Amino acid sequence: MAGNNVFYAQSGGATAVINASACGVIETARRHSDRLGKVYVGRNGVLGALREELIDTSLESAEAISALRYTPSSAFGSCRYKLKGLEENRAEYERLIDVFQAHNIGYFFYNGGGDSQDTSHKVSQMAQKMGVPLTCIGIPKTVDNDLAFTDNCPGFGSVAKYVAVSILEAGLDVAGMASTSTKVFIMEVMGRHTGWIAASAGLASEKENEPPHIILFPEIPFNPENFLRRVDECVKNYGYCVIAVSEGVRNQDGQFLAESGLRDAFGHAQLGGVAPTIAQLIKSSLGYKYHWAVADYLQRAARHIASKTDVEQAYALGQAAVEYALKGTNGVMLTLERTSDTPYQWQIGTVPLEKVANIEKGLPREFISDNGMHITSACRQYLQPLIAGEDYPPYRNGIPEYIRLKNTIIEKKIEKAFIG
Amino acid sequence: MAGNNVFYAQSGGATAVINASACGVIETARRHSDRLGKVYVGRNGVLGALREELIDTSLESAEAISALRYTPSSAFGSCRYKLKGLEENRAEYERLIDVFQAHNIGYFFYNGGGDSQDTSHKVSQMAQKMGVPLTCIGIPKTVDNDLAFTDNCPGFGSVAKYVAVSILEAGLDVAGMASTSTKVFIMEVMGRHTGWIAASAGLASEKENEPPHIILFPEIPFNPENFLRRVDECVKNYGYCVIAVSEGVRNQDGQFLAESGLRDAFGHAQLGGVAPTIAQLIKSSLGYKYHWAVADYLQRAARHIASKTDVEQAYALGQAAVEYALKGTNGVMLTLERTSDTPYQWQIGTVPLEKVANIEKGLPREFISDNGMHITSACRQYLQPLIAGEDYPPYRNGIPEYIRLKNTIIEKKIEKAFIG
Repeated sequence: MAGNNVFYAQSGGATAVINASACGVIETARRHSDRLGKVYVGRNGVLGALREELIDTSLESAEAISALRYTPSSAFGSCRYKLKGLEENRAEYERLIDVFQAHNIGYFFYNGGGDSQDTSHKVSQMAQKMGVPLTCIGIPKTVDNDLAFTDNCPGFGSVAKYVAVSILEAGLDVAGMASTSTKVFIMEVMGRHTGWIAASAGLASEKENEPPHIILFPEIPFNPENFLRRVDECVKNYGYCVIAVSEGVRNQDGQFLAESGLRDAFGHAQLGGVAPTIAQLIKSSLGYKYHWAVADYLQRAARHIASKTDVEQAYALGQAAVEYALKGTNGVMLTLERTSDTPYQWQIGTVPLEKVANIEKGLPREFISDNGMHITSACRQYLQPLIAGEDYPPYRNGIPEYIRLKNTIIEKKIEKAFIG
Repeated sequence: MAGNNVFYAQSGGATAVINASACGVIETARRHSDRLGKVYVGRNGVLGALREELIDTSLESAEAISALRYTPSSAFGSCRYKLKGLEENRAEYERLIDVFQAHNIGYFFYNGGGDSQDTSHKVSQMAQKMGVPLTCIGIPKTVDNDLAFTDNCPGFGSVAKYVAVSILEAGLDVAGMASTSTKVFIMEVMGRHTGWIAASAGLASEKENEPPHIILFPEIPFNPENFLRRVDECVKNYGYCVIAVSEGVRNQDGQFLAESGLRDAFGHAQLGGVAPTIAQLIKSSLGYKYHWAVADYLQRAARHIASKTDVEQAYALGQAAVEYALKGTNGVMLTLERTSDTPYQWQIGTVPLEKVANIEKGLPREFISDNGMHITSACRQYLQPLIAGEDYPPYRNGIPEYIRLKNTIIEKKIEKAFIG
C-alpha cells in the first residue's frame, strides 16, 4: 500500500519564487489532510532524502508557511547534486526508495530545472522497478527559462522583471550623465546557454534610441567588429550606449568570452566577468568611458521586484502538483500552457518526465533582431506578460520581512548512514 | 532690481531621488507665481547655464512635473564639471552671471554634492562682486552621504535601502545553496572615500550569523590576514560567508585595491572591480567557491526600491529652497537636522555655503565594530530611519512608468557662445 506522506524538495539554483511553489504544495496538502499525511521537505534538496534529513513542515505555523509565498531563495536548502544513471549508481536510488518507505512517503514532488527533472524521472523508474508505489511529479523551476515543453518557467518572470527594471533605471542614469561622464554602460546578466534573461532587458526599450541599445545573446556568436561599430553608432547618434550581455556569450570558436575555470557539480563552467571583458574591449578600441555591473545572485533573489504573474504561476504549480497527484497523475512534469497572448491567459498541463529530461530550449532566431543585437516584436509579445504585475513582500524596518523557518529535522529510522 | 525667474540645475552623479528635489522646486515655484517667474533648468547642470541652454519647465504639464517625484536619474541632464577658482577663471563666472541677467534670473538653486556646493559658493561670491542681486541656495544631494553639516544626504537613503535589501536577498540565496555550491558571496557597492553605503548592508543582518557577515570599509585599511581568518571562520561556523565591500577599500599603503586608472573630470579615480579582486584572494588562499556582484549604477538609480524617507526629504528640500529664498535666505546650503531617533523626526536647517564646500564626512569609528568588519548598534540606529518606508512608482506593462520630459530649450539671448 502506498504511503500517504509527501516528500518535496528544491533543487538547483534558487529563484525568487521557488518558495511560492513550496507554499502551494504545503498549503494544498494541508487542505487534503483526509488523504495526505505530513509534508516532509528534503534538507538541501534530494540530498536530504539520501541523508534521511527530512524537515517536518507540520511544525511550522500556517503564517510561516504562508510567508513562503513572498520569501525568495530555497527556504529548506537546495543542492547541486545530480544522481548518476540508474545502472551506474543503483545504490543511491535504492537508498531514496528505502528512505521514502521508512517514512511512509507515497508522493515525490521535485521542484527544479532540467537536471532535476532527469532525477525525478529516474526515481520514478526505480520505484517502479522495485515495485514501490510512488507518485512522482516534477514542478518546473529555472531562472534560465530553458525547459522544453512548458511555455515558460517559474523564476524566469521575476528575473526578467528585475533585469528590465534595472536596465531601465541604469539607462536613465547614463542618459543624464553622458554629456560629461560615462558613455557606455554594460550590465551582465545570467543565462549560461540561453539568452532568455538577456532578451528581457529589451523590454525596457520601446524605441530604437532607448536603452538598452545592444543585447548580446549566447545564441549569436560574438562578432567584435559588428559590435564595436554599433556601440560607436549609438554613442554618436544617442550620446551614449547601454548594453545587456549574457554571461554565456561565446566567441566565433564557441568559447565563453569569460570563463573563470571553475565548474559546478553538474560539470557546467562557472561564468562571470563578461562585462569587464567587453568594457575593456570598448575602452581599448573606442576609448569611451564606461561603467559595468554584474547582477549575479541579486537578479535571481530579487523577490522585492518579483513579477506577480510569476508568483501566481509558481504557487499554482505547487498546488497543482498535489491536486494532480491525488487524481492519480504520475511520472509527469507540470507545464505552463499559454492559451492567449492578449489578454494573457494560461493553464497548467503535463508532459511525461522521460520526454523533458535534459532538453534545453534556446531563444528562437525569430525572437532576435536581424542584426543579432536586440529583440523582435514577437519576442516582446512572448516576454511581456511574464513580467506583468507587482507582488510586493511586507516590510519591517525598511527591509522585507522574509521568513526563516524552524526547519526541524525528524528522527532517523534507518541505521545505515548515506555515504555520498 | 533682481530678476524673478529661477535657475535650477542638477550636478554630479545621479540619484534615485534628485528629481524629487526638482519636483519640489518647480511645484513650489508654481505655487508662488505672484512673486516668481519661470523655472529654467540647466541642460546638463551648470553647463546649461554656461552654454545658455536653458530648459523651460513652464512647457511641461503639472502631471509631467509631478511624475519627477518618482523618476530616477537627472531628468534634465547632469554634469561632472567643476568651475575653477574665481581668480583662475573669472570669465566662467562672469559668463554665468551674464546668462542669468539676460534671462532675468534672480534665484540660483544648485542641487549637488560637495563639489557642487563649492560652485554655488563661488557663484554667490561672484554675483556679490559684480553687484548683481542673486539668491543662491544649495540643495544637498549625494549617494555617498559624505556632506558635512547635514545629518544625511538625499539619495543616500535609497541606495542604502537597495543595498540592504539586495544583500538580504542574495544572502538567503547563498544560505540555501551553500551546502553543495557557492560558499562565499561578495557584493561590491559604491562609496569612493567613505563607507556609508557599505555600512548600510549591515542593516540586513540582525544577528551575528546572518549575512552580511563581513563589511569592508574605506575607513579601515584592508588587512588580508584578519579578513581571510574571518571568512574561514564564517564558512566553518555558518556554512557560508557573505561580504559587502566598498569600491573605495584601500590597502595598508593607502592604495585602492582595485583601480582602473581612469579619472573623472574632478580628478577622482574611477573605481570598480574590488569584488573580483577579493574573490580571487579568497579562492587562492582558502579555495572556496565564490560568486560576486558589482551593483554599480543599478544601486543609485534604483527608484523602484527607494526609501520613502529619502523621497520625502528630497522633495521637502526642493520645496524649502524656494520658500527660504522667498523669505530672503541667501548663500546657504539647506541641511537635514535629526531632532529625534525614536520616533525618527527631522527638520530642515541651513549652513553658510563657505563652510560646507569640499569637506568630506567619513563614517565615525564608533559606527564600525571593534574588528573593523561590521557596524555597531549606534550605526544601526543612525541608518535605520533613513531606509524606512516604501514609495513605489506606478507601473505599466510590468516596468515603472518613468517620465521623459520634453526639455525644450529656450532661445538664446547672448550672441557670444561659451567656449568651455
